[in-house]
Amino acid sequence: MHCRELTKPDGRALYLYSRSPIDRRIVATNPPHPISKPNPHLRWHPLRGEWVVYASHRQDRTFLPPKEYSPLAVSRSAEFPTELPQGEYDVAVFDNLFPSLTLSGEDPEREIVSTRPARGHCDVVVFTQNPDTSLGGLPVDHIALILEVLGERTRELGSRKDIQYVLPFENRGVEVGVTLHHPHGQIYSYSFIPPVVARMQKMAKEHFSQHHQSLFSDLIAEELNASRRVIARRASALAFVPVCARYPYETWVAPIRSVPYLYELEASERRDLAITLKTVLSKYDRMWNRPFPYLLTLYQAPTDGEPHPEAHSHFQIYPPYRTRDKLKFLAGTELAAGVFVNDSLPEEKARELIDVECPVYE
Amino acid sequence: MHCRELTKPDGRALYLYSRSPIDRRIVATNPPHPISKPNPHLRWHPLRGEWVVYASHRQDRTFLPPKEYSPLAVSRSAEFPTELPQGEYDVAVFDNLFPSLTLSGEDPEREIVSTRPARGHCDVVVFTQNPDTSLGGLPVDHIALILEVLGERTRELGSRKDIQYVLPFENRGVEVGVTLHHPHGQIYSYSFIPPVVARMQKMAKEHFSQHHQSLFSDLIAEELNASRRVIARRASALAFVPVCARYPYETWVAPIRSVPYLYELEASERRDLAITLKTVLSKYDRMWNRPFPYLLTLYQAPTDGEPHPEAHSHFQIYPPYRTRDKLKFLAGTELAAGVFVNDSLPEEKARELIDVECPVYE
Repeated sequence: MHCRELTKPDGRALYLYSRSPIDRRIVATNPPHPISKPNPHLRWHPLRGEWVVYASHRQDRTFLPPKEYSPLAVSRSAEFPTELPQGEYDVAVFDNLFPSLTLSGEDPEREIVSTRPARGHCDVVVFTQNPDTSLGGLPVDHIALILEVLGERTRELGSRKDIQYVLPFENRGVEVGVTLHHPHGQIYSYSFIPPVVARMQKMAKEHFSQHHQSLFSDLIAEELNASRRVIARRASALAFVPVCARYPYETWVAPIRSVPYLYELEASERRDLAITLKTVLSKYDRMWNRPFPYLLTLYQAPTDGEPHPEAHSHFQIYPPYRTRDKLKFLAGTELAAGVFVNDSLPEEKARELIDVECPVYE
Repeated sequence: MHCRELTKPDGRALYLYSRSPIDRRIVATNPPHPISKPNPHLRWHPLRGEWVVYASHRQDRTFLPPKEYSPLAVSRSAEFPTELPQGEYDVAVFDNLFPSLTLSGEDPEREIVSTRPARGHCDVVVFTQNPDTSLGGLPVDHIALILEVLGERTRELGSRKDIQYVLPFENRGVEVGVTLHHPHGQIYSYSFIPPVVARMQKMAKEHFSQHHQSLFSDLIAEELNASRRVIARRASALAFVPVCARYPYETWVAPIRSVPYLYELEASERRDLAITLKTVLSKYDRMWNRPFPYLLTLYQAPTDGEPHPEAHSHFQIYPPYRTRDKLKFLAGTELAAGVFVNDSLPEEKARELIDVECPVYE
């Protein structure tokens, strides 16, 4: 992987990644925007025992612009700069112009609950220069490069003392609230371990101390043995609708080997993971012959400096549809109680996905 | 409050409630439907440490029928029975035809994770016979009656040994996934304490053991003192956008006195709570001159037989809009990490709601 680190005229960082060497003459750009110093802050939610982020500058963020004004398109000319400079490269990562978390936050006003600067970092990850494709539509090599980029960003961000957790994710489709159509993901880096992650850590640690094995690895072994929910399989990676899917078409994509962080994978494992991920995303799009929206998230171990033998890095994908024309809404029981109701059986949805014809990627 | 308990031809229970005596000649009805014995089950989600409900019979539930086929409309004639019989009454409660939880569940098949029958109960609460109004549009007396009904159902359901938590809620609007437009709520009764409730219990108990005061009562005192987020106030009830709002227009409506269960309120307190709730819901609808969607939920203490001096019964309302034309989507950070990002300040949204003109209800 080739990488170049640049600084945008407005001071934000830009990283370019490519499978081939990157032209050293490329200069970082940014679209014109009013100068702002975002200062998001945290407030403690005493009833739920969790932090809530307040980022009021985000109300002004770019919302579904027409294609010719996309800030993620490659700059067409020096007069119309965007977030992406002209030149040859595969993937670009830069500081979000409207970050929910920043490393430079100042102390917020006092409130009746505890407050803090919303420290952390928000990356935008542009998957490709092509605005008309998708993560799953990219060649295997290109997806493998993206996985490498997510791993490297996790390593870099996670090495900071003030970053405890790095969360790469992709929101795809207006159904999940996407505000820019160009294929891209994001990386949120938190100064604390988020509550969902803390809960998952707790469960994984309990299992590990009892069984001396990663909980996720044990689950994989059982899913492989049961086999009926496995929708893609390579030597070192697999994809399955988990036995406990909360969303009808929920799919998990994982390396077989238990690694706490994505950057610990060998190139061959990363390639298998890319192929498996591409297979799932291709099946999604082929099922109803239209782009299939989802939230895709990469879970890794916290970057809190502790060893995490219990962690097994993997992707979880949550599609919002429950049938071709009906969305699964999160409502009373899900949002107020935290109890998900799934109107379908994971085995049945897995069968639908298994049956979708799809090329064998290599 | 007058109440009659009836049995539908298909065996489900029907409760009618009214401010005046109910005609004893009313006979329970139900729409024709194929006989089904729902058998939802639970599977353990080992990574998150929570139960997930599988209710595949719910795929066939009635979805946004035209008004003349609404199962919640009053039966027009003996040939076209609905869930609601003809006759005078204010509120009807009956067993959901498509329950996510049932008291009669049989053991599910074994799986690679723990499974259990999805024990519990699902009520439908029809707020009024009028299909063209809303909870907030009803007269104060009628809303007070609904609060009494929610309280009584909590008492009855909660008295069962196999019910640990009773959750009344209303999903209002297609934006939050409503499948029937007639004004109605639901009550989910769980055989376990749901994860969100368990977390809130933990926080409330810790505070209580330290301060000998309910956490929520202390928060109310501070919100009243700060005053800028209070949008409605009566002698024994208040409504405010909480300092830690996760949704831009989130509002909490509560009695001032700390009671673990709604049924413990005096009639005058219930009336104040009804007036306060009506004020908030009216302001919502008046703000943009259109029905304002929301998820409304009533938190009470668990019904696990333990005393709960730490609990303070109250409503939390989560509207899905962040501006007049933009929804707040739950995406990467909210769903994958559990960290909510609010693009607005609770003080600002409270000010908007305070400024909405609305009659003074008595």
